[in-house]
Amino acid sequence: MKEKKAIIVGAGLVGSLWAIYLSKAGYTVDIYELRDDIRKVDISAGKSINLALSYRGWKALDNVGIGDEIRKIALPMFGRIMHDKKGAITYQAYGKEDQAIYSVSRGDLNAKMMDLAESFENTSIHYNHKCIDANLNKGIVYFENTKTKKRIERNATVVFGTDGAFSAIRIKAMQKTYRFQYSQHYIEDGYREILLPANKDGSYKLDKKALHIWPRGRFMLIALPNEDGSFTCTLFMPHKNNKNSFENLKTKDQINDFFKNEFLDFYKMIPEIAEIWGNHPLSPLAIIRCYPWAVGKAVLMGDAAHATVPFYGQGMNSGFEDCTVMEELRKKYNEDWEAIFDVFQKQQKPNGDAIQDLSLHNYHVMRDFVGDTKFLLQKKIEAEFSKKHPDKWLPLYSQVSFSDIPYAKALQVGKQQNKIMKEVMQLDNIETIWDSEEVTAYILKRL
Amino acid sequence: MKEKKAIIVGAGLVGSLWAIYLSKAGYTVDIYELRDDIRKVDISAGKSINLALSYRGWKALDNVGIGDEIRKIALPMFGRIMHDKKGAITYQAYGKEDQAIYSVSRGDLNAKMMDLAESFENTSIHYNHKCIDANLNKGIVYFENTKTKKRIERNATVVFGTDGAFSAIRIKAMQKTYRFQYSQHYIEDGYREILLPANKDGSYKLDKKALHIWPRGRFMLIALPNEDGSFTCTLFMPHKNNKNSFENLKTKDQINDFFKNEFLDFYKMIPEIAEIWGNHPLSPLAIIRCYPWAVGKAVLMGDAAHATVPFYGQGMNSGFEDCTVMEELRKKYNEDWEAIFDVFQKQQKPNGDAIQDLSLHNYHVMRDFVGDTKFLLQKKIEAEFSKKHPDKWLPLYSQVSFSDIPYAKALQVGKQQNKIMKEVMQLDNIETIWDSEEVTAYILKRL
Repeated sequence: MKEKKAIIVGAGLVGSLWAIYLSKAGYTVDIYELRDDIRKVDISAGKSINLALSYRGWKALDNVGIGDEIRKIALPMFGRIMHDKKGAITYQAYGKEDQAIYSVSRGDLNAKMMDLAESFENTSIHYNHKCIDANLNKGIVYFENTKTKKRIERNATVVFGTDGAFSAIRIKAMQKTYRFQYSQHYIEDGYREILLPANKDGSYKLDKKALHIWPRGRFMLIALPNEDGSFTCTLFMPHKNNKNSFENLKTKDQINDFFKNEFLDFYKMIPEIAEIWGNHPLSPLAIIRCYPWAVGKAVLMGDAAHATVPFYGQGMNSGFEDCTVMEELRKKYNEDWEAIFDVFQKQQKPNGDAIQDLSLHNYHVMRDFVGDTKFLLQKKIEAEFSKKHPDKWLPLYSQVSFSDIPYAKALQVGKQQNKIMKEVMQLDNIETIWDSEEVTAYILKRL
Repeated sequence: MKEKKAIIVGAGLVGSLWAIYLSKAGYTVDIYELRDDIRKVDISAGKSINLALSYRGWKALDNVGIGDEIRKIALPMFGRIMHDKKGAITYQAYGKEDQAIYSVSRGDLNAKMMDLAESFENTSIHYNHKCIDANLNKGIVYFENTKTKKRIERNATVVFGTDGAFSAIRIKAMQKTYRFQYSQHYIEDGYREILLPANKDGSYKLDKKALHIWPRGRFMLIALPNEDGSFTCTLFMPHKNNKNSFENLKTKDQINDFFKNEFLDFYKMIPEIAEIWGNHPLSPLAIIRCYPWAVGKAVLMGDAAHATVPFYGQGMNSGFEDCTVMEELRKKYNEDWEAIFDVFQKQQKPNGDAIQDLSLHNYHVMRDFVGDTKFLLQKKIEAEFSKKHPDKWLPLYSQVSFSDIPYAKALQVGKQQNKIMKEVMQLDNIETIWDSEEVTAYILKRL
């Protein structure tokens, strides 16, 4: 019998979840985390406070029996509400009537999952431990205790790097290995978060059953509900080289003018916008690609392997899906980690690439297309056809958010669908015949 | 007056040359080099022993008055000699009659340039110093002496990272800075060097006035002359996933069969090929792209900024050209390094990208097209037209190797030329009318 001993580098969302899987499988799990225990320190100045849990995420949570615990802190969003410049509102359902994505606080979710992980006596989380190097073939990881400056070395049968986009184990140990492919690409845009507080009576200022979008072509504002009546809002736009860019939002006048001109309904809810502008930092957005994901006894999962931009709400979900897949392979290959890693990376790398492509594409959808009546009509036609022939057509958004169809497959099918829909949108009087048998017949013929 | 104090990280070709420039400009220069003094240790097991110096390289050497010293150890190659599978030979001149690229030993060249750099009393080279981190804004670099393990910190007004494709200053300090774009991409192919010795009487086994190529479509063998009568030969081919790949050259039988089948004339000169196969390692080939090149008081030059694959023979030449450009800017902006760096990276980044694209393209030219009579005819037509109208047409190879036209411009002009030549090659009886007035007129009209 092999020793069942695992090191997990990074106690974030994927690391905590994967620790629960391994604990249940009888592993002794040691998680090493760079930061202090987030349950004891204030992280409100952190980033990406809100996340959207969808099908793949829930599946991974339910697989290990903790879905219901998390449901207690998750708010369903059944569709998008678009706000145009005049304040007029359009609604688009995400999927079928009862289908929703769920707004959840990153901090609350992570704290809850750490509690759950630590409830297993064979699992420990070690805070303030910085990964400084690793011997990947031997399964040894070197850490420095950031408080005592003491350096330690730890080894295990298997090492998981779940330490995010700027994974130390990847940068310090993997990047220099033979023919390691790597790229970190920052897109032109950045983001800044804005907290829209609850009304004085604790009620919500916007419909809390939807994700709100102010699409403006080259930039956008979005809002996701929190449990306490507030919304976490995020402005995405270019850093510079554009009239509407963060470099042109420096003074209070610039900020006020910008919000009054572009998001008047939003501005009226939060006229103190210029005062609270600096509460959250301007942050960059990166796509990280690498390969292989596994070297020796170590493997990357989640953002460490395939960090993406947040526009499809799939960063966490794809990381959680890594846990689902890794667990299936662990059982199938009976703890033969060399075989498991080999299959895992070959299978998941195309899906990591695909969700990155899909995420970039969905930025255009969110900031631009959702404000376009033609696009919304196209989505209505797809939904209608899908209702009539669910076995023949699942809209791309539903494939990504409400199924576990591999992302690479979804991307490919989505491209075919888009080709057909381009033709359909050219049909005479499509605005009036959109739900007719004629249109259904046309699509059926083209499939 | 600002203090004129510079740190150069890496005593390779670009670092040594740039040290000479700075020494002459009155700087106190400290070069820190990871390796031991190459003049004292054997580096014959190293890689890339031969390089091809061309116009840009000579210009940078002559600018600082050391060209003639280097000419003593450089061998001119006036064209390519292609060897087909039957041993038949074709010759293609590189440029005009007296134009050549020059084969030079990396080790000899580097040693000579270190000697020249150290001949300035304001310049010192510190060996066995590993760059472990840097404070780029303060101009501080941290080194570890690899022999004593002692750590030191050094500071300067300006820091130059000339430490190659796997630049420590880039990896340890720049990669984590705000929105630093970075990619390391390994191509499918690798290379292995083979030394073809001189005849017993010291004479050359092949014509020493040319670069020899055995083009074989998906792979190729090349040979460059050394001063001692030997040739340094290099086999380029895929690592794997191909019938002809390094993974299929493991046993002596495989190696012998391969060389007998593919390079019989070469095999006859070196029937001991299977015995000496392991003398040099199999090495990978990477393209490194990054931006910015300058952060704070530090800037990257040469491979550290824009490492490329060796197929245009421009790796060293482009690094030397960085010295030419940096020197022009140093004078123009009167030691205002912030301004110099800003202009340098904006001007040179497109050229770095272009030489990488050109290098990748030239792999196809060398391994495939040069074996094609149509391609050789096209090049003959271009040479002929260029002779008649030198002000209207400089062939791409000449732009890159025999001029200092910026690489980005050369790439762009080369694409236009190729478009025109595709049409020309479609003309009726082009094989017979290739040097006619009709063809000249056609090209003139299309320009």
